[in-house]
Amino acid sequence: MPRYKLTVEYDGRPFCGWQRQANGPSVQAVIERAIKAFTGEVVTIGGAGRTDTGVHATGQACHADLSKSWPTKTIMGAMNFHCQPDPVVILDVEEMHEGFDARFSAIRRSYRYRIHNRLPPLTHQLGLAWHVKPELDAAAMHGAAQEFVGHHDFTTFRHSRCQAKSPEKTLEEFSVYREGEFVIAECSSRSFLHNQVRSMVGTLRLVGEGKWGAGDITSALQARDRKACGPVAPADGLYLTRVDYRPPEMDIELLNEWRERKAAMEAEVEGEA
Amino acid sequence: MPRYKLTVEYDGRPFCGWQRQANGPSVQAVIERAIKAFTGEVVTIGGAGRTDTGVHATGQACHADLSKSWPTKTIMGAMNFHCQPDPVVILDVEEMHEGFDARFSAIRRSYRYRIHNRLPPLTHQLGLAWHVKPELDAAAMHGAAQEFVGHHDFTTFRHSRCQAKSPEKTLEEFSVYREGEFVIAECSSRSFLHNQVRSMVGTLRLVGEGKWGAGDITSALQARDRKACGPVAPADGLYLTRVDYRPPEMDIELLNEWRERKAAMEAEVEGEA
Repeated sequence: MPRYKLTVEYDGRPFCGWQRQANGPSVQAVIERAIKAFTGEVVTIGGAGRTDTGVHATGQACHADLSKSWPTKTIMGAMNFHCQPDPVVILDVEEMHEGFDARFSAIRRSYRYRIHNRLPPLTHQLGLAWHVKPELDAAAMHGAAQEFVGHHDFTTFRHSRCQAKSPEKTLEEFSVYREGEFVIAECSSRSFLHNQVRSMVGTLRLVGEGKWGAGDITSALQARDRKACGPVAPADGLYLTRVDYRPPEMDIELLNEWRERKAAMEAEVEGEA
Repeated sequence: MPRYKLTVEYDGRPFCGWQRQANGPSVQAVIERAIKAFTGEVVTIGGAGRTDTGVHATGQACHADLSKSWPTKTIMGAMNFHCQPDPVVILDVEEMHEGFDARFSAIRRSYRYRIHNRLPPLTHQLGLAWHVKPELDAAAMHGAAQEFVGHHDFTTFRHSRCQAKSPEKTLEEFSVYREGEFVIAECSSRSFLHNQVRSMVGTLRLVGEGKWGAGDITSALQARDRKACGPVAPADGLYLTRVDYRPPEMDIELLNEWRERKAAMEAEVEGEA
Protein backbone atom coordinates (compact mmCIF):
# COMPACT_ATOMS: atom_id res chain seq x y z
CA MET A 1 0.00 0.00 0.00
CA PRO A 2 1.81 3.12 -1.16
CA ARG A 3 2.11 5.93 1.38
CA TYR A 4 2.02 9.53 0.21
CA LYS A 5 3.10 12.71 1.91
CA LEU A 6 0.90 15.73 1.13
CA THR A 7 2.05 19.30 1.75
CA VAL A 8 -1.02 21.32 2.64
CA GLU A 9 -1.97 25.02 2.65
CA TYR A 10 -5.19 26.24 4.22
CA ASP A 11 -7.05 29.29 5.37
CA GLY A 12 -7.95 28.40 8.96
CA ARG A 13 -10.91 30.78 9.26
CA PRO A 14 -13.79 28.42 8.43
CA PHE A 15 -12.36 25.46 10.36
CA CYS A 16 -12.47 24.12 13.93
CA GLY A 17 -8.82 23.32 13.31
CA TRP A 18 -6.88 20.52 11.68
CA GLN A 19 -8.39 17.58 13.53
CA ARG A 20 -11.61 15.85 12.49
CA GLN A 21 -14.39 16.68 14.96
CA ALA A 22 -18.03 15.75 15.38
CA ASN A 23 -19.19 19.33 15.89
CA GLY A 24 -17.64 21.31 13.05
CA PRO A 25 -15.67 21.42 9.81
CA SER A 26 -12.00 20.47 9.95
CA VAL A 27 -9.15 20.45 7.47
CA GLN A 28 -8.61 16.73 8.04
CA ALA A 29 -12.24 15.98 7.09
CA VAL A 30 -11.92 18.04 3.88
CA ILE A 31 -8.85 16.07 2.81
CA GLU A 32 -10.31 12.69 3.77
CA ARG A 33 -13.51 13.55 1.88
CA ALA A 34 -11.43 14.51 -1.17
CA ILE A 35 -9.58 11.15 -1.05
CA LYS A 36 -12.95 9.37 -0.86
CA ALA A 37 -14.18 11.34 -3.88
CA PHE A 38 -10.95 10.60 -5.76
CA THR A 39 -10.34 6.87 -5.09
CA GLY A 40 -13.50 5.80 -3.29
CA GLU A 41 -11.43 4.78 -0.26
CA VAL A 42 -12.17 5.72 3.34
CA VAL A 43 -8.77 6.74 4.67
CA THR A 44 -7.64 8.22 7.97
CA ILE A 45 -4.80 10.64 7.37
CA GLY A 46 -2.13 11.61 9.89
CA GLY A 47 -1.07 15.25 10.20
CA ALA A 48 2.24 16.67 11.40
CA GLY A 49 0.62 19.22 13.70
CA ARG A 50 -2.88 19.66 15.06
CA THR A 51 -3.49 23.35 14.42
CA ASP A 52 -6.27 25.04 16.44
CA THR A 53 -9.44 26.79 15.28
CA GLY A 54 -8.59 29.69 12.95
CA VAL A 55 -4.88 28.81 12.67
CA HIS A 56 -3.52 28.79 9.11
CA ALA A 57 -0.95 26.71 7.27
CA THR A 58 1.23 27.24 4.24
CA GLY A 59 3.27 24.08 4.83
CA GLN A 60 1.36 21.55 6.94
CA ALA A 61 2.18 17.93 6.11
CA CYS A 62 0.20 14.72 6.36
CA HIS A 63 0.43 11.16 5.12
CA ALA A 64 -2.21 9.02 3.45
CA ASP A 65 -2.16 5.37 2.38
CA LEU A 66 -3.78 4.61 -0.95
CA SER A 67 -4.58 1.11 -2.16
CA LYS A 68 -2.79 1.64 -5.47
CA SER A 69 0.00 3.73 -6.94
CA TRP A 70 -0.76 6.96 -8.82
CA PRO A 71 1.44 9.54 -10.50
CA THR A 72 1.91 12.27 -7.85
CA LYS A 73 0.66 14.93 -10.31
CA THR A 74 -2.59 13.00 -10.75
CA ILE A 75 -3.08 12.85 -6.99
CA MET A 76 -2.37 16.57 -6.64
CA GLY A 77 -4.78 17.56 -9.41
CA ALA A 78 -7.56 15.28 -8.20
CA MET A 79 -7.17 16.35 -4.57
CA ASN A 80 -7.19 20.04 -5.47
CA PHE A 81 -10.29 19.46 -7.56
CA HIS A 82 -12.14 17.61 -4.80
CA CYS A 83 -11.10 19.91 -1.93
CA GLN A 84 -12.87 22.81 -3.67
CA PRO A 85 -14.61 25.03 -2.67
CA ASP A 86 -13.00 24.66 0.76
CA PRO A 87 -9.88 26.83 1.17
CA VAL A 88 -7.59 23.80 1.43
CA VAL A 89 -5.02 22.98 -1.25
CA ILE A 90 -2.32 20.40 -1.77
CA LEU A 91 0.95 22.11 -2.70
CA ASP A 92 3.00 18.97 -3.17
CA VAL A 93 2.67 15.18 -3.23
CA GLU A 94 5.54 12.77 -2.65
CA GLU A 95 5.55 8.98 -2.49
CA MET A 96 7.18 7.89 0.79
CA HIS A 97 8.55 4.68 2.27
CA GLU A 98 6.37 2.63 4.64
CA GLY A 99 8.21 3.90 7.75
CA PHE A 100 7.21 7.51 7.15
CA ASP A 101 4.76 9.07 9.59
CA ALA A 102 3.86 12.77 9.16
CA ARG A 103 3.79 13.23 12.93
CA PHE A 104 6.48 10.93 14.28
CA SER A 105 9.05 11.30 11.50
CA ALA A 106 9.04 15.11 11.82
CA ILE A 107 12.18 16.62 13.25
CA ARG A 108 11.29 20.30 13.00
CA ARG A 109 8.11 22.40 12.84
CA SER A 110 8.28 26.07 11.81
CA TYR A 111 5.66 28.68 12.55
CA ARG A 112 5.22 32.26 11.42
CA TYR A 113 3.18 34.79 13.37
CA ARG A 114 2.01 37.96 11.56
CA ILE A 115 1.17 41.12 13.51
CA HIS A 116 -0.41 43.99 11.54
CA ASN A 117 0.90 46.91 13.58
CA ARG A 118 -1.09 50.04 12.73
CA LEU A 119 -3.79 52.31 14.12
CA PRO A 120 -6.71 51.76 11.67
CA PRO A 121 -8.68 48.49 11.81
CA LEU A 122 -7.89 45.74 9.30
CA THR A 123 -9.63 45.14 5.97
CA HIS A 124 -7.87 42.65 3.66
CA GLN A 125 -5.89 41.23 6.58
CA LEU A 126 -8.93 40.55 8.79
CA GLY A 127 -8.48 37.04 10.21
CA LEU A 128 -5.06 36.74 8.56
CA ALA A 129 -3.05 38.79 11.05
CA TRP A 130 -3.23 40.06 14.63
CA HIS A 131 -4.16 43.75 14.77
CA VAL A 132 -1.97 45.56 17.33
CA LYS A 133 -2.33 49.34 17.52
CA PRO A 134 0.55 50.61 19.70
CA GLU A 135 3.79 50.84 17.76
CA LEU A 136 5.91 47.80 18.55
CA ASP A 137 9.69 47.78 18.93
CA ALA A 138 10.50 44.71 16.80
CA ALA A 139 14.21 44.82 17.70
CA ALA A 140 13.39 44.69 21.43
CA MET A 141 11.01 41.79 20.77
CA HIS A 142 13.71 39.96 18.83
CA GLY A 143 16.19 40.47 21.65
CA ALA A 144 13.75 39.21 24.29
CA ALA A 145 12.69 36.26 22.08
CA GLN A 146 16.24 34.87 22.43
CA GLU A 147 15.37 34.08 26.07
CA PHE A 148 13.04 31.40 24.71
CA VAL A 149 15.71 29.77 22.56
CA GLY A 150 17.22 26.57 23.95
CA HIS A 151 15.94 23.88 26.31
CA HIS A 152 13.36 25.14 28.81
CA ASP A 153 10.40 24.13 30.91
CA PHE A 154 7.62 25.96 29.04
CA THR A 155 4.87 25.41 31.65
CA THR A 156 4.15 29.17 31.66
CA PHE A 157 3.72 29.17 27.91
CA ARG A 158 1.39 26.23 27.34
CA HIS A 159 -2.37 25.87 27.42
CA SER A 160 -3.72 24.84 30.82
CA ARG A 161 -5.28 21.82 29.08
CA CYS A 162 -2.12 20.93 27.13
CA GLN A 163 -1.85 17.13 27.07
CA ALA A 164 1.88 16.75 26.47
CA LYS A 165 3.53 14.61 29.16
CA SER A 166 6.49 16.94 29.57
CA PRO A 167 6.49 20.75 29.48
CA GLU A 168 10.13 20.70 28.38
CA LYS A 169 10.95 21.65 24.82
CA THR A 170 13.98 22.86 22.90
CA LEU A 171 13.32 25.98 20.86
CA GLU A 172 15.81 26.06 17.99
CA GLU A 173 15.23 29.55 16.65
CA PHE A 174 13.11 32.61 17.27
CA SER A 175 13.41 35.73 15.15
CA VAL A 176 11.24 38.84 15.13
CA TYR A 177 11.53 41.53 12.50
CA ARG A 178 9.59 44.40 10.97
CA GLU A 179 8.32 44.39 7.37
CA GLY A 180 6.54 47.69 6.73
CA GLU A 181 3.37 47.76 8.81
CA PHE A 182 3.93 44.13 9.83
CA VAL A 183 5.90 42.61 12.67
CA ILE A 184 6.78 39.00 11.81
CA ALA A 185 7.80 36.38 14.36
CA GLU A 186 9.28 33.09 13.17
CA CYS A 187 10.22 30.17 15.35
CA SER A 188 11.07 26.53 14.97
CA SER A 189 11.36 23.56 17.28
CA ARG A 190 11.20 19.77 17.03
CA SER A 191 7.70 20.11 18.45
CA PHE A 192 5.62 22.67 20.31
CA LEU A 193 3.26 22.55 23.28
CA HIS A 194 -0.41 23.46 22.89
CA ASN A 195 -0.71 27.26 22.41
CA GLN A 196 3.06 27.69 22.90
CA VAL A 197 3.68 30.01 19.94
CA ARG A 198 0.63 32.17 20.66
CA SER A 199 1.60 32.36 24.35
CA MET A 200 5.15 33.42 23.54
CA VAL A 201 4.07 35.98 20.91
CA GLY A 202 1.39 37.42 23.21
CA THR A 203 4.00 37.89 25.90
CA LEU A 204 6.55 39.37 23.49
CA ARG A 205 3.95 42.00 22.59
CA LEU A 206 4.43 43.37 26.12
CA VAL A 207 8.13 43.75 25.32
CA GLY A 208 7.30 45.44 22.00
CA GLU A 209 5.16 47.97 23.85
CA GLY A 210 7.94 48.63 26.36
CA LYS A 211 5.96 47.23 29.29
CA TRP A 212 8.28 44.26 29.77
CA GLY A 213 12.03 43.77 29.37
CA ALA A 214 13.89 40.63 28.31
CA GLY A 215 14.44 39.87 32.01
CA ASP A 216 10.68 39.59 32.52
CA ILE A 217 10.59 36.83 29.89
CA THR A 218 13.27 34.92 31.83
CA SER A 219 11.31 35.37 35.07
CA ALA A 220 8.08 34.22 33.41
CA LEU A 221 9.86 31.09 32.12
CA GLN A 222 11.34 30.41 35.54
CA ALA A 223 7.96 30.87 37.25
CA ARG A 224 6.70 27.67 35.54
CA ASP A 225 3.23 29.03 36.15
CA ARG A 226 0.57 29.63 33.48
CA LYS A 227 -0.46 32.81 35.33
CA ALA A 228 2.94 34.39 34.55
CA CYS A 229 2.13 34.31 30.80
CA GLY A 230 1.07 37.48 28.98
CA PRO A 231 -2.29 37.65 27.15
CA VAL A 232 -2.26 34.89 24.51
CA ALA A 233 -2.12 36.11 20.88
CA PRO A 234 -5.16 35.20 18.74
CA ALA A 235 -5.20 32.39 16.17
CA ASP A 236 -5.57 34.87 13.27
CA GLY A 237 -1.86 35.59 12.87
CA LEU A 238 -0.50 32.04 13.20
CA TYR A 239 0.74 29.98 10.23
CA LEU A 240 2.33 26.52 10.26
CA THR A 241 4.84 27.17 7.49
CA ARG A 242 7.06 24.11 7.29
CA VAL A 243 7.69 20.61 8.59
CA ASP A 244 11.11 19.02 8.20
CA TYR A 245 11.68 15.28 8.25
CA ARG A 246 14.56 13.00 9.16
CA PRO A 247 16.25 11.08 6.40
CA PRO A 248 14.27 7.99 5.24
CA GLU A 249 17.06 5.57 6.28
CA MET A 250 16.50 6.60 9.86
CA ASP A 251 12.74 6.09 9.58
CA ILE A 252 13.24 2.62 8.17
CA GLU A 253 15.78 1.79 10.85
CA LEU A 254 13.32 2.92 13.52
CA LEU A 255 10.52 0.96 11.88
CA ASN A 256 12.63 -2.22 11.85
CA GLU A 257 13.63 -1.65 15.45
CA TRP A 258 9.97 -1.23 16.38
CA ARG A 259 9.05 -4.43 14.50
CA GLU A 260 11.78 -6.39 16.26
CA ARG A 261 10.66 -5.07 19.61
CA LYS A 262 7.04 -5.94 18.81
CA ALA A 263 8.01 -9.44 17.68
CA ALA A 264 10.04 -9.91 20.85
CA MET A 265 7.13 -8.76 22.99
CA GLU A 266 4.75 -11.08 21.20
CA ALA A 267 7.16 -13.99 21.58
CA GLU A 268 7.35 -13.22 25.29
CA VAL A 269 3.57 -13.13 25.64
CA GLU A 270 3.33 -16.42 23.77
CA GLY A 271 6.02 -17.86 26.02
CA GLU A 272 3.97 -16.83 29.05
CA ALA A 273 0.81 -18.43 27.74
CA MET B 1 -17.79 74.74 6.08
CA PRO B 2 -14.49 72.87 6.40
CA ARG B 3 -13.67 70.34 3.71
CA TYR B 4 -11.76 67.18 4.56
CA LYS B 5 -9.89 64.74 2.40
CA LEU B 6 -10.11 61.13 3.55
CA THR B 7 -7.68 58.44 2.36
CA VAL B 8 -9.60 55.17 2.26
CA GLU B 9 -8.70 51.48 2.24
CA TYR B 10 -11.29 48.78 1.60
CA ASP B 11 -11.77 45.16 0.81
CA GLY B 12 -14.00 45.27 -2.27
CA ARG B 13 -15.45 41.76 -1.87
CA PRO B 14 -18.72 42.60 -0.08
CA PHE B 15 -19.45 45.73 -2.11
CA CYS B 16 -21.20 46.62 -5.38
CA GLY B 17 -18.34 49.04 -5.81
CA TRP B 18 -17.51 52.54 -4.60
CA GLN B 19 -20.67 54.32 -5.69
CA ARG B 20 -23.86 54.43 -3.62
CA GLN B 21 -26.53 52.23 -5.21
CA ALA B 22 -30.12 51.36 -4.47
CA ASN B 23 -29.61 47.64 -4.91
CA GLY B 24 -26.58 46.79 -2.80
CA PRO B 25 -23.91 47.81 -0.31
CA SER B 26 -21.32 50.34 -1.45
CA VAL B 27 -18.21 51.85 0.08
CA GLN B 28 -19.64 55.36 -0.34
CA ALA B 29 -22.75 54.41 1.69
CA VAL B 30 -20.60 52.96 4.49
CA ILE B 31 -18.62 56.21 4.77
CA GLU B 32 -21.68 58.45 4.56
CA ARG B 33 -23.41 56.35 7.21
CA ALA B 34 -20.34 56.69 9.44
CA ILE B 35 -20.37 60.49 9.03
CA LYS B 36 -24.07 60.51 9.99
CA ALA B 37 -23.31 58.40 13.08
CA PHE B 38 -20.39 60.69 13.98
CA THR B 39 -21.79 64.22 13.45
CA GLY B 40 -25.48 63.59 12.74
CA GLU B 41 -25.08 65.23 9.31
CA VAL B 42 -26.34 63.79 6.03
CA VAL B 43 -23.41 64.36 3.69
CA THR B 44 -22.73 63.32 0.10
CA ILE B 45 -19.07 62.54 -0.35
CA GLY B 46 -17.11 62.74 -3.60
CA GLY B 47 -14.65 59.99 -4.50
CA ALA B 48 -11.57 60.17 -6.72
CA GLY B 49 -12.42 56.99 -8.62
CA ARG B 50 -15.55 54.89 -8.94
CA THR B 51 -14.18 51.40 -8.41
CA ASP B 52 -16.31 48.46 -9.65
CA THR B 53 -17.83 45.54 -7.76
CA GLY B 54 -15.10 43.56 -6.00
CA VAL B 55 -12.31 46.03 -6.75
CA HIS B 56 -10.13 46.94 -3.76
CA ALA B 57 -8.41 50.11 -2.59
CA THR B 58 -5.45 50.87 -0.38
CA GLY B 59 -5.35 54.56 -1.28
CA GLN B 60 -8.76 55.74 -2.57
CA ALA B 61 -9.49 59.40 -1.75
CA CYS B 62 -12.71 61.30 -1.17
CA HIS B 63 -13.77 64.65 0.23
CA ALA B 64 -16.49 65.46 2.75
CA ASP B 65 -17.79 68.78 4.05
CA LEU B 66 -18.55 68.93 7.76
CA SER B 67 -20.47 71.78 9.42
CA LYS B 68 -17.76 72.36 12.01
CA SER B 69 -14.03 71.90 12.41
CA TRP B 70 -12.66 68.82 14.19
CA PRO B 71 -9.13 67.69 14.94
CA THR B 72 -8.24 65.30 12.09
CA LYS B 73 -7.35 62.55 14.60
CA THR B 74 -10.83 62.78 16.10
CA ILE B 75 -12.40 62.41 12.67
CA MET B 76 -10.21 59.42 11.85
CA GLY B 77 -10.94 57.65 15.14
CA ALA B 78 -14.69 58.29 14.95
CA MET B 79 -14.92 57.25 11.30
CA ASN B 80 -12.97 54.05 11.88
CA PHE B 81 -15.22 53.27 14.83
CA HIS B 82 -18.44 53.86 12.88
CA CYS B 83 -17.34 52.10 9.65
CA GLN B 84 -17.00 48.85 11.62
CA PRO B 85 -17.72 46.02 11.01
CA ASP B 86 -17.54 46.84 7.28
CA PRO B 87 -14.05 46.32 5.81
CA VAL B 88 -13.59 50.05 5.13
CA VAL B 89 -11.03 52.14 7.00
CA ILE B 90 -9.80 55.71 6.90
CA LEU B 91 -6.01 55.77 6.71
CA ASP B 92 -5.59 59.53 6.80
CA VAL B 93 -7.60 62.73 7.23
CA GLU B 94 -6.48 66.14 6.03
CA GLU B 95 -8.27 69.50 6.16
CA MET B 96 -8.35 70.97 2.64
CA HIS B 97 -9.11 74.33 1.05
CA GLU B 98 -12.58 74.96 -0.43
CA GLY B 99 -11.34 74.49 -4.00
CA PHE B 100 -10.37 70.86 -3.41
CA ASP B 101 -12.41 68.18 -5.14
CA ALA B 102 -11.36 64.53 -4.76
CA ARG B 103 -12.31 63.82 -8.36
CA PHE B 104 -11.49 66.99 -10.27
CA SER B 105 -8.34 68.05 -8.40
CA ALA B 106 -6.70 64.67 -8.98
CA ILE B 107 -3.78 64.66 -11.39
CA ARG B 108 -2.78 60.99 -11.14
CA ARG B 109 -4.42 57.69 -10.24
CA SER B 110 -2.30 54.61 -9.57
CA TYR B 111 -3.50 51.03 -9.69
CA ARG B 112 -1.90 47.75 -8.76
CA TYR B 113 -3.00 44.42 -10.20
CA ARG B 114 -2.00 41.21 -8.37
CA ILE B 115 -1.82 37.88 -10.22
CA HIS B 116 -1.25 34.76 -8.10
CA ASN B 117 0.59 32.64 -10.61
CA ARG B 118 0.64 29.02 -9.44
CA LEU B 119 -0.95 25.65 -10.16
CA PRO B 120 -2.94 24.97 -6.94
CA PRO B 121 -6.14 26.95 -6.26
CA LEU B 122 -6.01 29.93 -3.89
CA THR B 123 -6.77 29.90 -0.16
CA HIS B 124 -5.77 33.08 1.70
CA GLN B 125 -5.64 35.04 -1.58
CA LEU B 126 -9.16 34.07 -2.73
CA GLY B 127 -10.81 37.29 -3.96
CA LEU B 128 -7.60 39.24 -3.36
CA ALA B 129 -5.70 38.18 -6.48
CA TRP B 130 -6.31 36.69 -9.92
CA HIS B 131 -5.45 33.02 -10.07
CA VAL B 132 -3.51 32.24 -13.28
CA LYS B 133 -2.12 28.70 -13.61
CA PRO B 134 0.25 28.76 -16.64
CA GLU B 135 3.64 30.18 -15.75
CA LEU B 136 3.77 33.80 -16.90
CA ASP B 137 6.80 35.54 -18.35
CA ALA B 138 6.69 38.78 -16.35
CA ALA B 139 9.58 40.33 -18.30
CA ALA B 140 7.76 39.80 -21.61
CA MET B 141 4.62 41.31 -20.08
CA HIS B 142 6.60 44.32 -18.88
CA GLY B 143 8.09 44.81 -22.33
CA ALA B 144 4.70 44.62 -24.06
CA ALA B 145 3.11 46.89 -21.41
CA GLN B 146 5.33 49.72 -22.68
CA GLU B 147 3.17 49.77 -25.85
CA PHE B 148 0.38 51.16 -23.66
CA VAL B 149 2.51 53.99 -22.28
CA GLY B 150 1.88 57.42 -23.81
CA HIS B 151 -1.11 59.03 -25.48
CA HIS B 152 -3.44 56.56 -27.22
CA ASP B 153 -7.01 55.92 -28.24
CA PHE B 154 -7.95 53.16 -25.78
CA THR B 155 -11.27 52.19 -27.42
CA THR B 156 -10.14 48.53 -27.52
CA PHE B 157 -9.40 48.60 -23.81
CA ARG B 158 -12.52 50.16 -22.36
CA HIS B 159 -15.87 48.74 -21.30
CA SER B 160 -18.49 48.78 -24.07
CA ARG B 161 -20.65 50.87 -21.71
CA CYS B 162 -17.85 53.27 -20.72
CA GLN B 163 -19.35 56.74 -20.46
CA ALA B 164 -16.23 58.86 -20.97
CA LYS B 165 -16.63 61.32 -23.87
CA SER B 166 -13.20 60.63 -25.28
CA PRO B 167 -11.42 57.23 -25.51
CA GLU B 168 -8.06 59.03 -25.51
CA LYS B 169 -5.89 58.82 -22.42
CA THR B 170 -2.23 59.29 -21.57
CA LEU B 171 -0.75 56.37 -19.67
CA GLU B 172 2.22 57.63 -17.66
CA GLU B 173 3.72 54.39 -16.48
CA PHE B 174 3.17 50.65 -16.67
CA SER B 175 5.47 48.18 -14.96
CA VAL B 176 5.10 44.44 -14.54
CA TYR B 177 7.36 42.36 -12.31
CA ARG B 178 7.49 39.05 -10.50
CA GLU B 179 7.46 38.75 -6.71
CA GLY B 180 7.72 35.07 -5.81
CA GLU B 181 4.46 33.38 -6.84
CA PHE B 182 2.94 36.76 -7.73
CA VAL B 183 3.08 38.82 -10.91
CA ILE B 184 2.40 42.46 -10.08
CA ALA B 185 1.32 45.08 -12.62
CA GLU B 186 1.38 48.76 -11.68
CA CYS B 187 0.20 51.62 -13.82
CA SER B 188 -0.66 55.26 -13.44
CA SER B 189 -2.46 57.88 -15.51
CA ARG B 190 -4.28 61.16 -14.92
CA SER B 191 -7.46 59.14 -15.29
CA PHE B 192 -8.58 55.79 -16.62
CA LEU B 193 -11.47 54.57 -18.77
CA HIS B 194 -14.02 52.12 -17.39
CA ASN B 195 -12.37 48.66 -17.13
CA GLN B 196 -9.18 49.96 -18.74
CA VAL B 197 -6.70 48.41 -16.26
CA ARG B 198 -8.48 45.05 -16.22
CA SER B 199 -8.68 45.06 -20.04
CA MET B 200 -4.97 45.81 -20.38
CA VAL B 201 -3.92 43.24 -17.75
CA GLY B 202 -6.18 40.56 -19.23
CA THR B 203 -4.55 41.15 -22.62
CA LEU B 204 -1.03 41.19 -21.17
CA ARG B 205 -1.74 37.73 -19.76
CA LEU B 206 -1.73 36.49 -23.37
CA VAL B 207 1.77 37.92 -23.71
CA GLY B 208 2.82 36.29 -20.41
CA GLU B 209 1.67 32.93 -21.76
CA GLY B 210 3.57 33.44 -25.00
CA LYS B 211 0.40 33.55 -27.12
CA TRP B 212 0.84 37.22 -28.04
CA GLY B 213 3.86 39.41 -28.70
CA ALA B 214 4.30 43.13 -28.03
CA GLY B 215 3.31 43.79 -31.65
CA ASP B 216 -0.11 42.26 -31.02
CA ILE B 217 -0.69 44.84 -28.29
CA THR B 218 0.09 47.63 -30.76
CA SER B 219 -2.29 46.10 -33.33
CA ALA B 220 -5.03 45.76 -30.73
CA LEU B 221 -4.60 49.43 -29.76
CA GLN B 222 -4.69 50.47 -33.42
CA ALA B 223 -7.81 48.38 -34.09
CA ARG B 224 -9.84 50.74 -31.86
CA ASP B 225 -12.30 47.88 -31.50
CA ARG B 226 -13.47 46.31 -28.24
CA LYS B 227 -13.41 42.90 -29.92
CA ALA B 228 -9.61 43.13 -30.29
CA CYS B 229 -9.21 43.10 -26.48
CA GLY B 230 -8.10 39.94 -24.68
CA PRO B 231 -10.29 38.36 -21.96
CA VAL B 232 -10.77 41.01 -19.26
CA ALA B 233 -9.04 40.26 -15.93
CA PRO B 234 -11.39 39.83 -12.92
CA ALA B 235 -11.95 42.48 -10.24
CA ASP B 236 -10.27 40.32 -7.56
CA GLY B 237 -6.72 41.44 -8.29
CA LEU B 238 -7.30 45.16 -8.77
CA TYR B 239 -6.35 47.78 -6.16
CA LEU B 240 -6.61 51.58 -6.39
CA THR B 241 -3.41 52.36 -4.51
CA ARG B 242 -2.89 56.10 -4.76
CA VAL B 243 -4.37 59.38 -5.92
CA ASP B 244 -2.11 62.41 -6.43
CA TYR B 245 -3.38 65.97 -6.38
CA ARG B 246 -2.25 69.24 -7.93
CA PRO B 247 -0.88 71.92 -5.59
CA PRO B 248 -3.64 73.82 -3.68
CA GLU B 249 -2.70 77.18 -5.29
CA MET B 250 -3.75 75.75 -8.62
CA ASP B 251 -7.04 74.48 -7.22
CA ILE B 252 -7.79 77.91 -5.75
CA GLU B 253 -6.81 79.63 -9.00
CA LEU B 254 -9.16 77.32 -10.93
CA LEU B 255 -11.92 77.90 -8.38
CA ASN B 256 -11.56 81.68 -8.72
CA GLU B 257 -11.55 81.38 -12.49
CA TRP B 258 -14.73 79.29 -12.33
CA ARG B 259 -16.36 81.84 -10.01
CA GLU B 260 -15.45 84.72 -12.32
CA ARG B 261 -16.83 82.85 -15.30
CA LYS B 262 -20.01 82.01 -13.37
CA ALA B 263 -20.42 85.66 -12.31
CA ALA B 264 -19.86 86.82 -15.90
CA MET B 265 -22.45 84.34 -17.15
CA GLU B 266 -24.94 85.45 -14.53
CA ALA B 267 -24.32 89.14 -15.40
CA GLU B 268 -24.91 88.27 -19.04
CA VAL B 269 -28.19 86.49 -18.24
CA GLU B 270 -29.28 89.47 -16.11
CA GLY B 271 -28.31 91.86 -18.96
CA GLU B 272 -30.49 89.79 -21.30
CA ALA B 273 -33.47 89.91 -18.98
